Amino acid sequence: MKGPRLTEIVAGLPAIVPFVGPETQERQRGRPFRARLGANENVFGPSPAAVEAMARAARDAWMYGDPECHDLRAAIASQHGVAPENVLVGEGIDGILGLAVRLVVAPGDPVVTSLGGYPTLNYHVAGHGGRLVQVPYRDDHEDPEALVAAAWEHGARLVYLANPDNPMGTWHDAATIGRMIAELPEDVLFLLDEAYVEFAPAGAVPAIDISDPRVLRLRTFSKAHGMAGARIGYALGAADVIAAFDRIRNHFGVSRIAQAGALAALGDRASLDRVVKEVAAARDAIARIARQNGLTPVPSATNFVAIDCGGDGDFARRVLAELIARDIFVRMPSVAPLDRCIRISCGRAEDLELLARALPDALAAARA
Amino acid sequence: MKGPRLTEIVAGLPAIVPFVGPETQERQRGRPFRARLGANENVFGPSPAAVEAMARAARDAWMYGDPECHDLRAAIASQHGVAPENVLVGEGIDGILGLAVRLVVAPGDPVVTSLGGYPTLNYHVAGHGGRLVQVPYRDDHEDPEALVAAAWEHGARLVYLANPDNPMGTWHDAATIGRMIAELPEDVLFLLDEAYVEFAPAGAVPAIDISDPRVLRLRTFSKAHGMAGARIGYALGAADVIAAFDRIRNHFGVSRIAQAGALAALGDRASLDRVVKEVAAARDAIARIARQNGLTPVPSATNFVAIDCGGDGDFARRVLAELIARDIFVRMPSVAPLDRCIRISCGRAEDLELLARALPDALAAARA
Repeated sequence: MKGPRLTEIVAGLPAIVPFVGPETQERQRGRPFRARLGANENVFGPSPAAVEAMARAARDAWMYGDPECHDLRAAIASQHGVAPENVLVGEGIDGILGLAVRLVVAPGDPVVTSLGGYPTLNYHVAGHGGRLVQVPYRDDHEDPEALVAAAWEHGARLVYLANPDNPMGTWHDAATIGRMIAELPEDVLFLLDEAYVEFAPAGAVPAIDISDPRVLRLRTFSKAHGMAGARIGYALGAADVIAAFDRIRNHFGVSRIAQAGALAALGDRASLDRVVKEVAAARDAIARIARQNGLTPVPSATNFVAIDCGGDGDFARRVLAELIARDIFVRMPSVAPLDRCIRISCGRAEDLELLARALPDALAAARA
Repeated sequence: MKGPRLTEIVAGLPAIVPFVGPETQERQRGRPFRARLGANENVFGPSPAAVEAMARAARDAWMYGDPECHDLRAAIASQHGVAPENVLVGEGIDGILGLAVRLVVAPGDPVVTSLGGYPTLNYHVAGHGGRLVQVPYRDDHEDPEALVAAAWEHGARLVYLANPDNPMGTWHDAATIGRMIAELPEDVLFLLDEAYVEFAPAGAVPAIDISDPRVLRLRTFSKAHGMAGARIGYALGAADVIAAFDRIRNHFGVSRIAQAGALAALGDRASLDRVVKEVAAARDAIARIARQNGLTPVPSATNFVAIDCGGDGDFARRVLAELIARDIFVRMPSVAPLDRCIRISCGRAEDLELLARALPDALAAARA
């Protein structure tokens, strides 16, 4: 029997699974990790108020979530001084990225991003038949000027930049991002991914000009709010652009439980402040551990630290493999020269103690 | 400022929001519904084991869900006597429908469905630029022979049928569906939407031939399992077809909380049996209320009953409006001749008591 015929775009996509979770690795290894420091998750967890709200919502899970996410959008809007019409709630930034690509990228259309930047963006662009234009990092930072130049040169439909950046953790100040926005073509959609923004210094966060239809600010409850597993994020943008998502989004797609949790999380500022402090302390601790081992931490405004292992990509990959062999789950950038680093997510003291114990042996083994 | 240019497909989509939830209606009305009987939700709720599992998972929501949904897929596979490679877990059937369309429908490609059938399928087909071929119902049933004929005539890439059907609640026996499958073109993808299958008589459920690459059986935790708000469903199909989804799906998109809840729900057969019995009783009660008011219930194998109001679509729309004015949330089919009916989801005794009280007045007002 022949079976269904895939579209030309889908048939041309790689058949390998591009995303491997820590659980998959644990199953392959036959034993669990002792420290989960690879996925930029927030081990300090959701606000107790969010946990309580989600547990309560679980009992009401027989009802679909509000497709307008009315209450949550109102709360987000109020917090950012915009209107609810400027807020899109979606199934995490990953889900919103897919929709944003679909909104403006037809087959063959160019998308400008950084070489070695967030791979899920690339995945969605390929998945919709777009053409990736990848601009090298400069000094471990995404390069706003080069991104703008590439956008003009290639007639980009979409430009992506994460500030602070993943996988390097570096950031630009608000003025630099502001200049970048000013210089972008007028018909482009600029995805400013601010997943890690709560961890960043205030100076890294540009004021929101909600009237600029080119700029979509992407935020999430997965990082500082510690709700990665609930799958909820949002975008801030001009009302017309936000409304365009209503043409293609899965209207009943945002979990009722996640909506309730996010609303409670927004209301618990004290918990957020506490987490941000714990993350900052963990970031310092990771940098210290790196230096104690003769390695160089890249300054970070996120909940992870890229550590320059001092060699090439092959060496960093060996260090990574040796840490994983010692039950420490970490990841690393995929593209040179970023791949001279491994990337360690912030953990509790006990997680970082395991890291501190494993790293010297891992380095020795990688050098052997 | 010009702003981003939508793709040709998206620019051609209607700008109106196609899905209006009960919460939106409540906000517009300025008061809540007293009975929520419109969205085919399952007021009898999730299994207590699922509620407990979701509450527990809320505390672990800082971790992304397993992108392979390994444990849940294994449990689903075991229950259906297939391999985990035959199981796709997704963000509800709605989410899987969108991916399935994207997999095989390029712009202009024909999709065969029933005129007045599940609107979310139509939404996704339009959203990907597909061409809808809509086959009339016959005697309030989807018409398998006509769907097959249309598939051949139009060279359909995708064929959709819900068994039991939504919005009519009617069903075909396994032999009829089996004949339909046998006669389908060999290169088509057939989406057999079995969202309501747990409520159906055993004779309505064809055996699963997992080797047939044309057939994808769609199941959900939103209906009998009472977890609509958690957003989780699955598809059963040939391993190659299931694997194709890995090229485009949002790999970390399924909530960790939903995975935990679904796994617990699958393990609580007693709760499912109880719910199915309560639904059957409520279905009988709705039919009785209809008859007491001189209306004709359409026989149903789902958790809702289509009630023939005995007039045309305008009359049924008036009845619907009068029920809503009396704080009873109900919906109705959108297309003639199905739209002579209103559609009432199963409720608790107290919900149906409110319906029984409101319906005579609503009918009188609609006739006035």
